Amino acid sequence: MGALSETLTQFLIPVAALVGIGFALLQWFLVSRVKVSSHDSSNGYKAKLIEADEQEEGIDNIEVSIKCAEIQHAISVGATSFLYTEYKYLGIFMGVFAVIIFLFLGSVKGFSTKSEPCTYNQGNTCKPALANAAFSTIAFLLGALTSVLSGFLGMKIATYANARTTLEARRGVGKAFIIAFRSGAVMGFLLAANGLLVLYVSINLFKLYYGDDWEGLYESITGYGLGGSSMALFGRVGGGIYTKAADVGADLVGKVEKNIPEDDPRNPAVIADNVGDNVGDIAGMGSDLFGSYAESSCAALFVASISSFGIDHDFTAMSYPLIISSMGIVVCLITTLFATDMFEIKSVSEIEPSLKRQLVISTVLMTAGIAVVSFLALPSEFTLFDFGTEKLVKNWHLFFCVAIGLWAGLVIGYVTEYYTSNAYSPVQDVADSCRTGAATNVIFGLALGYKSVIIPIFAIATSIYVSFRLAAMYGIAMAALGMLSTIATGLAIDAYGPISDNAGGIAEMAGMSHSIRERTDALDAAGNTTAAIGKGFAIGSAALVSLALFGAYVSRAGIKSVDVLAPKVFIGLIVGAMLPYWFSAMTMKSVGSAALKMVEEVRRQFNSIPGLMEGTTKPDYANCVKISTDASLREMIPPGALVMLTPLIAGTLFGVETLAGVLAGSLVSGVQVAISASNTGGAWDNAKKYIEAGASEHAKSLGPKGSDCHKAAVIGDTIGDPLKDTSGPSLNILIKLMAVESLVFAPFFAAHGGLLFKVL
Amino acid sequence: MGALSETLTQFLIPVAALVGIGFALLQWFLVSRVKVSSHDSSNGYKAKLIEADEQEEGIDNIEVSIKCAEIQHAISVGATSFLYTEYKYLGIFMGVFAVIIFLFLGSVKGFSTKSEPCTYNQGNTCKPALANAAFSTIAFLLGALTSVLSGFLGMKIATYANARTTLEARRGVGKAFIIAFRSGAVMGFLLAANGLLVLYVSINLFKLYYGDDWEGLYESITGYGLGGSSMALFGRVGGGIYTKAADVGADLVGKVEKNIPEDDPRNPAVIADNVGDNVGDIAGMGSDLFGSYAESSCAALFVASISSFGIDHDFTAMSYPLIISSMGIVVCLITTLFATDMFEIKSVSEIEPSLKRQLVISTVLMTAGIAVVSFLALPSEFTLFDFGTEKLVKNWHLFFCVAIGLWAGLVIGYVTEYYTSNAYSPVQDVADSCRTGAATNVIFGLALGYKSVIIPIFAIATSIYVSFRLAAMYGIAMAALGMLSTIATGLAIDAYGPISDNAGGIAEMAGMSHSIRERTDALDAAGNTTAAIGKGFAIGSAALVSLALFGAYVSRAGIKSVDVLAPKVFIGLIVGAMLPYWFSAMTMKSVGSAALKMVEEVRRQFNSIPGLMEGTTKPDYANCVKISTDASLREMIPPGALVMLTPLIAGTLFGVETLAGVLAGSLVSGVQVAISASNTGGAWDNAKKYIEAGASEHAKSLGPKGSDCHKAAVIGDTIGDPLKDTSGPSLNILIKLMAVESLVFAPFFAAHGGLLFKVL
Repeated sequence: MGALSETLTQFLIPVAALVGIGFALLQWFLVSRVKVSSHDSSNGYKAKLIEADEQEEGIDNIEVSIKCAEIQHAISVGATSFLYTEYKYLGIFMGVFAVIIFLFLGSVKGFSTKSEPCTYNQGNTCKPALANAAFSTIAFLLGALTSVLSGFLGMKIATYANARTTLEARRGVGKAFIIAFRSGAVMGFLLAANGLLVLYVSINLFKLYYGDDWEGLYESITGYGLGGSSMALFGRVGGGIYTKAADVGADLVGKVEKNIPEDDPRNPAVIADNVGDNVGDIAGMGSDLFGSYAESSCAALFVASISSFGIDHDFTAMSYPLIISSMGIVVCLITTLFATDMFEIKSVSEIEPSLKRQLVISTVLMTAGIAVVSFLALPSEFTLFDFGTEKLVKNWHLFFCVAIGLWAGLVIGYVTEYYTSNAYSPVQDVADSCRTGAATNVIFGLALGYKSVIIPIFAIATSIYVSFRLAAMYGIAMAALGMLSTIATGLAIDAYGPISDNAGGIAEMAGMSHSIRERTDALDAAGNTTAAIGKGFAIGSAALVSLALFGAYVSRAGIKSVDVLAPKVFIGLIVGAMLPYWFSAMTMKSVGSAALKMVEEVRRQFNSIPGLMEGTTKPDYANCVKISTDASLREMIPPGALVMLTPLIAGTLFGVETLAGVLAGSLVSGVQVAISASNTGGAWDNAKKYIEAGASEHAKSLGPKGSDCHKAAVIGDTIGDPLKDTSGPSLNILIKLMAVESLVFAPFFAAHGGLLFKVL
Repeated sequence: MGALSETLTQFLIPVAALVGIGFALLQWFLVSRVKVSSHDSSNGYKAKLIEADEQEEGIDNIEVSIKCAEIQHAISVGATSFLYTEYKYLGIFMGVFAVIIFLFLGSVKGFSTKSEPCTYNQGNTCKPALANAAFSTIAFLLGALTSVLSGFLGMKIATYANARTTLEARRGVGKAFIIAFRSGAVMGFLLAANGLLVLYVSINLFKLYYGDDWEGLYESITGYGLGGSSMALFGRVGGGIYTKAADVGADLVGKVEKNIPEDDPRNPAVIADNVGDNVGDIAGMGSDLFGSYAESSCAALFVASISSFGIDHDFTAMSYPLIISSMGIVVCLITTLFATDMFEIKSVSEIEPSLKRQLVISTVLMTAGIAVVSFLALPSEFTLFDFGTEKLVKNWHLFFCVAIGLWAGLVIGYVTEYYTSNAYSPVQDVADSCRTGAATNVIFGLALGYKSVIIPIFAIATSIYVSFRLAAMYGIAMAALGMLSTIATGLAIDAYGPISDNAGGIAEMAGMSHSIRERTDALDAAGNTTAAIGKGFAIGSAALVSLALFGAYVSRAGIKSVDVLAPKVFIGLIVGAMLPYWFSAMTMKSVGSAALKMVEEVRRQFNSIPGLMEGTTKPDYANCVKISTDASLREMIPPGALVMLTPLIAGTLFGVETLAGVLAGSLVSGVQVAISASNTGGAWDNAKKYIEAGASEHAKSLGPKGSDCHKAAVIGDTIGDPLKDTSGPSLNILIKLMAVESLVFAPFFAAHGGLLFKVL
């Protein structure tokens, strides 16, 4: 037993979660002190005139403030209405899938209500399979609801903060930065704390029924991960299609055909574009990372429950993953203070370093935190389940597992930054290749994306090898959780990006001065890089999480080895490696078709609404919002079905071994496609920004806006949009979700799977 | 024992090979009857005035004929000089690598000259490891030389035939088609027959030393595959960079900036572009498919040698792979007659069906051929080596293995055609997306490539499952050989493409009339589709071949299972899956940089040579040829090193199991990247051609040449160039070559590998 008593554990975890939630609310309160006024009160908060101490440029201009409030309101309404429509569909899906889970898992022992001898904890009696089916279903619903809540709250604060960031930009870039950053922190802390709290409460409630049957308890809890991840799938895919249909559609007509700037209020798709940033990058990313967090916790808990922790009923050691997450919240809280209170941003050039400093500070502090938790919560020596054998592990082994995941995340983040920030040569080379046109730009961009895969893969491979050698599959799950332990900070700097992006859009639409737009552009440029870093984290953690889930699946399905030399495994492997391509084909085609529809609508409005181009009449924003909404909801079904049905079909028809092959194949192939797609898109975006900003002699020689080079760069940027914001990040979920679904359904596949081979 | 006696086998194989060579020479003779005249005799053949019976359009125009001869001469000289320079480098590489092979394999038993007990054929004595090292080295050199010879001969006939096709086009499209097709057949039959003959002679010569030690004999013969494949690597990569640097460079300045047509003689890069078609698509493709053929034969022979065929010394059954190939030559010979003698092409629309008919005829005939060979050459029942156990197999099982590979090839070919021919909706959709510009064109094209992976992967997976279940790894090797059994026909229709492409280029440069250019364009359009089909075959067979080699490697390295759950296997798997990306990044960047250099040179010539644009002075073609040559030779080294060194490093430092993971990972990931890259590029090319041809109402609405849609399509086409002709097809070699190299070095890795893990 470790030094930490069970009582103290039971006290500390919820306290950390509540502290996180309190801290998030405090940040929200601080953001709310910037007032946005309007005739129709926005967001339901009491509208007041601006109360600012320091009177800077245009701060007393009520017109501007009202305009900002209006725009914010339009964005918020669009985003909320999209999410509500999405949730309606998701509600139906959740209901249907909950029934499927219950029926499939219930049928494992023919819906018997008799208790069974335990599988791993031999000699003991475990609850009936029917109970596991019921509780898995409940956990699934809880996970789904928490995921939806996380996405929704993130979106709320983001749309609440964007106009406030714009208004604060009048008082200086530092003030605006703080608002955007605090808003990001609200989302980060709410999500991390909420995820932890719900999981903690669920475990304790389930325990009331399960008592000493921890095997069944933690088996059921895996449903939580499945729920979180399946909502994330639709959030990522639907949100991704929404945001990019609007973005690509708006750019193709506005920037390319009509030669009006980005976010120009005359563009009918401009509100849809801004809504998209919120539903795609904020709600989508939030539910994605929440899914990873929930899944890695569940994978670790499941493996622990069939190891000595579970068999000896050592609750503190069992809760090690939760304690690590609790420590993460505390560490991130301290880290946040560095950005908000200890340093002040005085110039534009300090923004990006300040955000990157957050990553380093949280990583260093967390390393110490992991050490503390590992020595206090774990016994000095214990055994872990290792595919049928027992592995003797020491507590400092686990320290290394968690820490290597954490640091691998930092490496991946920095490599991503190197390949996507225009401060370094890779993106500058891509920008330079625009001299010879769009074709070379695309060739160089694709090559950059491919190249950017190398180091992250070596980082992931090293983490896997070390953590597996030290603590088998439990080590991998903990490495994944280590990478996600600073999720509050990661999400804060990640959500910061779209908030700044929106702030810039609002400044443009409200007709604010050029200097304000320059400030928000600087915030946004830094946000582009942090968004890329965030995607790097998301995919890196997804890779580790999926492997951990894969290990848990294999354990639960009772497979002793997954031998590539067996033909049924190999065909799974090669077909699994194909799935990311199939999935990407669907999502990219969806963005393409939806964007074409948007282009037609935007063109139609420009052609049929008189005075639109001159700015004398308003475009019909709502129609564009509707096109994006309809397209994304319709188009998310086929890729969603592919991901959700593949494990069910593979498991039922071909059996647990082929499914294991499918999981391994989609993991090793999908991670490459995802990283390269995200980075290629990020690089094109920043190559374009590099030319636009013209900050160096080289950049000036390529620009200015509207030059041939710039046009070529815009084409690259547009191609990159679906790669980096739709197909790339959705792949994280593909690989995680198939793994967690397989894990949940493993008992069914093990009992009834492989029908086709049985028939042949 | 089968019905076929050893004596008859020993007679039939060389006879089939010689018949193939004779048939190729006959075709060459028939092509040579079209005379090309010039002041300086071209290609060293006696130059004569045209002797034509039917006097059609401009046939009596000596001017044109002389101009064609000049251009042909320039292309031929450029291609030959590139190949000679390439061979100089390859000669050095072969020498160095031969030494490495000898030293590594010799060191397995410490260079001992003592005979050893056999590994599989227990109780017998086998030749010393040192002898195997020496003979493997010899086999490597033989394979390399045969590969070089195949590529060289293909290039010779292609540059010999291109101007002849142009001149025949004056007499009608049917005549021109026959010339182009016969020339392709020369290459196909020479390559297939040559490969078979050299392999057959080598086996018989090696037997003089090895006698009854078939284990050692066929172990050494695997060097033949390694030699063939390593030359193919450099041929594909070097040739691919050459052709695309020239093509992209020529297009970017000529078509995009100067608005002059493709193949315009004023473009300084035009000769380099035409040379590129020969060194890339002809010599590169030839050595690639020869490599596949050699490797699948070697993999099958190796597995057979440690099965009952080898242990019982049943030479006829042992030679089953060679007899299948012999039958293939006969079948392809009959098939060719259908195109050259039984049907006559009367209109442009008959070209593509005629080429596709070749595929179907050869597949149907070959199915019967396989049945005959399987029942005559094989005993009705025998056992095959299956990773340490014995598998009982019947002769009709093997019929199914070979046949399923053959038919899977046809399926892959047809799917490839569906996704890359502009007769079907996928390419038409891509063309349509050009309405909204280059960005949507690229998005739709990438999505198409991803989607085109699905069916081929299922076809490959099915072949793998069936052939493995029936006859273990031997079945896979035979399925690969089945797909390649009609290689002579496949190569004929494949080589037909670049020949027609060149013919069109010569017509343009020689200033021939519009109607001639139309005919050659029609030949070329069909060639584009067959080129895509050929690439489909190449990658499909590469996947099966690599798996067969992988199986042989695992057997030879003495591994009993490749368990994904073992961390050292899994890290190999994920890093292996990353290699195709690393490799593609290198090759695409190489094409990009080389193209930029070409662009600069072409621009320089246009700016500094007075009268060039007006056509009054000639450009400096040779300088562009030199740029492509230098760039390709320099740039092929890093990707070549990546492929050649990875197995050596992984095997030596991490051991046989990690290497097995690397091979499996690169196989399942590489095949997807290769198929999608090839098809995306092919689709863009044909989408552009679709708009240019304007053959339907829809196509007309997108065109004509020079419209915005067409410009967007040209950008897609240019991006597709390196994808479809450099990085995509080179990946075939990546996956095959790493596998065959691992197979050859397996004894060394098994004895001395895994240093890093031993140290840790």
